[in-house]
Amino acid sequence: MAIPAETFFLRPDNETSLQQQIQRLIVEAILSGRCLPGEKMPSSRKLAEHLGVARITVTIAYTELVSNEYLVSKGRSGYFVSQTAPSRPKFNLPDQADKTQVDWARTIGQRFSEHVPLVRPDNWRDYKYPFIYGQSDARLFDHHNWRNCALKAVGRKDFDTLATDYYERDDPMLVEFILRQILPRRAITARPEEILITMGAQHALWITAQILLTQRRTAAIENPCYPGLRQILSQTRCNTVSVDVDAAGLPPENLPETLDVVFTTPSHHCPTNATMPVSRRERLLDLAARKGFIIVEDDYEFEISFLKSPSPALKSLDPTGSVIYVGSFSKSLFPGLRLGYLVASEPFIREARALRSLVLRHPPGLIQRTAAYFLSLGHYDAQIARMGRIYRKRRSIMEQSLHENGLTQTGQGTFGGSSFWMRAPNSADSSKLAMKLRQDGVLIEAGRAFFSEGEEQPGYYRLAYSSIASARIPDGISHLAKRLEEAVP
Amino acid sequence: MAIPAETFFLRPDNETSLQQQIQRLIVEAILSGRCLPGEKMPSSRKLAEHLGVARITVTIAYTELVSNEYLVSKGRSGYFVSQTAPSRPKFNLPDQADKTQVDWARTIGQRFSEHVPLVRPDNWRDYKYPFIYGQSDARLFDHHNWRNCALKAVGRKDFDTLATDYYERDDPMLVEFILRQILPRRAITARPEEILITMGAQHALWITAQILLTQRRTAAIENPCYPGLRQILSQTRCNTVSVDVDAAGLPPENLPETLDVVFTTPSHHCPTNATMPVSRRERLLDLAARKGFIIVEDDYEFEISFLKSPSPALKSLDPTGSVIYVGSFSKSLFPGLRLGYLVASEPFIREARALRSLVLRHPPGLIQRTAAYFLSLGHYDAQIARMGRIYRKRRSIMEQSLHENGLTQTGQGTFGGSSFWMRAPNSADSSKLAMKLRQDGVLIEAGRAFFSEGEEQPGYYRLAYSSIASARIPDGISHLAKRLEEAVP
Repeated sequence: MAIPAETFFLRPDNETSLQQQIQRLIVEAILSGRCLPGEKMPSSRKLAEHLGVARITVTIAYTELVSNEYLVSKGRSGYFVSQTAPSRPKFNLPDQADKTQVDWARTIGQRFSEHVPLVRPDNWRDYKYPFIYGQSDARLFDHHNWRNCALKAVGRKDFDTLATDYYERDDPMLVEFILRQILPRRAITARPEEILITMGAQHALWITAQILLTQRRTAAIENPCYPGLRQILSQTRCNTVSVDVDAAGLPPENLPETLDVVFTTPSHHCPTNATMPVSRRERLLDLAARKGFIIVEDDYEFEISFLKSPSPALKSLDPTGSVIYVGSFSKSLFPGLRLGYLVASEPFIREARALRSLVLRHPPGLIQRTAAYFLSLGHYDAQIARMGRIYRKRRSIMEQSLHENGLTQTGQGTFGGSSFWMRAPNSADSSKLAMKLRQDGVLIEAGRAFFSEGEEQPGYYRLAYSSIASARIPDGISHLAKRLEEAVP
Repeated sequence: MAIPAETFFLRPDNETSLQQQIQRLIVEAILSGRCLPGEKMPSSRKLAEHLGVARITVTIAYTELVSNEYLVSKGRSGYFVSQTAPSRPKFNLPDQADKTQVDWARTIGQRFSEHVPLVRPDNWRDYKYPFIYGQSDARLFDHHNWRNCALKAVGRKDFDTLATDYYERDDPMLVEFILRQILPRRAITARPEEILITMGAQHALWITAQILLTQRRTAAIENPCYPGLRQILSQTRCNTVSVDVDAAGLPPENLPETLDVVFTTPSHHCPTNATMPVSRRERLLDLAARKGFIIVEDDYEFEISFLKSPSPALKSLDPTGSVIYVGSFSKSLFPGLRLGYLVASEPFIREARALRSLVLRHPPGLIQRTAAYFLSLGHYDAQIARMGRIYRKRRSIMEQSLHENGLTQTGQGTFGGSSFWMRAPNSADSSKLAMKLRQDGVLIEAGRAFFSEGEEQPGYYRLAYSSIASARIPDGISHLAKRLEEAVP
């Protein structure tokens, strides 16, 4: 007797085709031991009727399962669970969840979970007015060509390259196109030995801190500053000095006397968007050469320069090799890609490569090769140009809406960027403001996380326009203005 | 006047279609500033003639470049470089390579480049007899369905999931299918909170060592042992004790009195392939519960069990939560994928997730989702079954060839696996043997790297059959036997 069709249920699922849903149902039934080798499957007609799908859909699913060896076809007798079908284990599954008797508080030698800030709700895409920073906008992304590049990367020709774990090297194609198409726009020239592919800018900063800093060394950071960097430094247990930025970014004269490494975002300070002028850059480089400290330049957003050509990178002005340059594809492509790079002198890159290999070997080949095709075929540049056009439009609507509501930005951002740095009147607490605005469907980022501990300035917040549609901006800003009025009686 | 067709050159390239090569040529010419905005492109007829390709090929490339905004079409007048084409930077590129004046020996605070072992030549695929371990065999891989799954993952529906950087969570679809389809075969039940996706097993081991070990703690490892683990421990600067394995794996009675963590490969000891019997597993677990140490179980190859059903994992026998389980897709899919996972108690996984987030945020969504589809549609199981069949055949040819040449394996491997652990007669130095064999096109792995420093046993070597075609095995083994005879006069 055949397995009754009635034992199969389709769960509502809009993500997968019906045929694949049916395949999955049957695979699960076989693996869980519910359908055993030799058992007859329901006829395609009966199963189709029961599930309310076309018969051909079931037939295709069955055929596919035959080629995967879950089922065998015995002509007119129908389909049977294969005798060699993948099967469940022959031992029983004990119920073992939640019975830990280990004293984890004692067992854990080093904690990392203390400083993770929650900057946004998981379901931020469901908010009507997401003034949220650093996420890609699916509407702006050249998904069609990205998909074609992924398809090309996953082709048979590239398989050996993608499948092998190269400890020592990166995808030479990606490295070549970064050297030829991306770095020249920052006026940086480099050799392949001076570049390392990383899993995003966070990974690049982490690697750099591990190599350069110890408990006996001192790092300077900007205040306010990217919170992820502060976490990294707190874990290395080095001495960290926060230096307040002004309208021209980090003032070199305020750096501490004793210093090993300074982390800076000269072209677009995070989060105020200030650009460091060339004269100040030269002073900083001069100081580094004389005192012998290293400058880590985080150039995370240079592509988003639609108002003004970006100034050359600090690295391009550096004849002595004191600058370690961090680049990222998170803003220009999307952050879930996890792809960035380090450019620095060869002795440093050698250590960085060895540390990367120790921790995770290398970034997956598929990701590297897909990005390489996207770059080499010109889609990347077109993507940047398209983003610039849309961001420019959104920015001007933002400016107008802010103006109409009597709000002004505190930060700079003459080059473009994707956000405004704002201050609430009378320094109302922006964390409370952010929570209230969620009720209106508005997401803003409170500024607290950007400041050093104990020096939080509650009035600041960030308004980004990289993920919000132009048409939504005026209403979103008007909600913001209303809540600000409530906060200031 | 149009840009002369003669200024364009096709470089020989078999990897890219002609149309894409032409696109790339023109993109490079525009970006480098050789073709300027407003300049007229050569007619498609002229360029096609000059390059020796069909005119339609050039026309398609031009059309594509129009849609990417590099070119504009002016009807019958032809194609022109777009006024808004991505352009080269407006500053000059200084020549700055190789001028570092930084004293890197002093500047680098922590070194990582000392212990990287080179285990294989980069061009190992060019060798005729690659008895090399741990690499995928493109001939066995279900490339067609893998490609379909990647294609599905990169589709528009999944884009939001893939593009966002989720700090806190993994792809829920992949986690679900590991919990439902993979762990049950190891008799492990777990909740989603007890699993963390990693960038391969190396990454999982590294994370575990960072959390559990400090300079004041002691780890025990097997001797011989996976060299990557020894590197990880040497970097944490913990006290490391090597315990010699026997034919039944790690003997619990030889573990040191004071112990915080033991790293073991009970189901398939690396590299001898020994399987730890259940009685010994129970003694080990009992000891861990009484003494309060943690067991890290590296189950890197359980799918490759074609001779015998795999025994339940150590983790499945553990009622107290003392076992941290490490799984990997490197052997079952391919190592360049960089995908593995940790299963452990929730307090540990919480720290592991925070550390992963600090270092690199999360594994790329595209990789996770592609694997999830491959699992959920049954292709993974079919893949494992196919590999098992082929490996079984290769193994039996290996056994026969070794026998005919008077060679015997030293290690075990009753479950299957993908390699033999061998010992040269009279303990001839296998590193020298390996170098000589390269001249014959034969690659073997010398055993030196598996042993503790100072205790290297030069006679051992590993012979894998995961990347060598069956037909090549007899000749390869016969070369090996000949060189061994030369070494032993």
